[in-house]
Amino acid sequence: MYYAKVFVTLKKSIADPQGNAIKGALLSMGYDGVKDVRMGKLIEIKLEDCCSEKAREKVEKMCSTLLANAVIEDYSYEITEVQP
Amino acid sequence: MYYAKVFVTLKKSIADPQGNAIKGALLSMGYDGVKDVRMGKLIEIKLEDCCSEKAREKVEKMCSTLLANAVIEDYSYEITEVQP
Repeated sequence: MYYAKVFVTLKKSIADPQGNAIKGALLSMGYDGVKDVRMGKLIEIKLEDCCSEKAREKVEKMCSTLLANAVIEDYSYEITEVQP
Repeated sequence: MYYAKVFVTLKKSIADPQGNAIKGALLSMGYDGVKDVRMGKLIEIKLEDCCSEKAREKVEKMCSTLLANAVIEDYSYEITEVQP
């Protein structure tokens, strides 16, 4: 069994109003020093596959076909083997 | 300058309809072997602070007071030092 942590983030050139709102809230709460906040998605996937290479290939395909919108988003992932 | 990656996930006992929808979509697209999908949030924060301990303390407090809802969500974070 494999556990994939997929990170989907907005590309740097895309405005992130949600992140800006969080930044504003943090600053108004007195957390000075906050320079930038960006909001992204974390998708945790548990999948069964024969080997880690196949699992990686599958997750890469999932990202490019469903999980991320390549026009505005970047993605990365970490895959670890776990006990079922 | 510190870069914090904050992961906010729904507690295990909380239903995750968004994750289930993604799981359903992946299965219907032919990605067999997908056992579970959970949807969470990724919040990337760049902050200036004197030392990594202070930064860690600040991020911990941000999580507990604003970024995560402790009733239904868990959080974790990674902090790394980066060049401004």
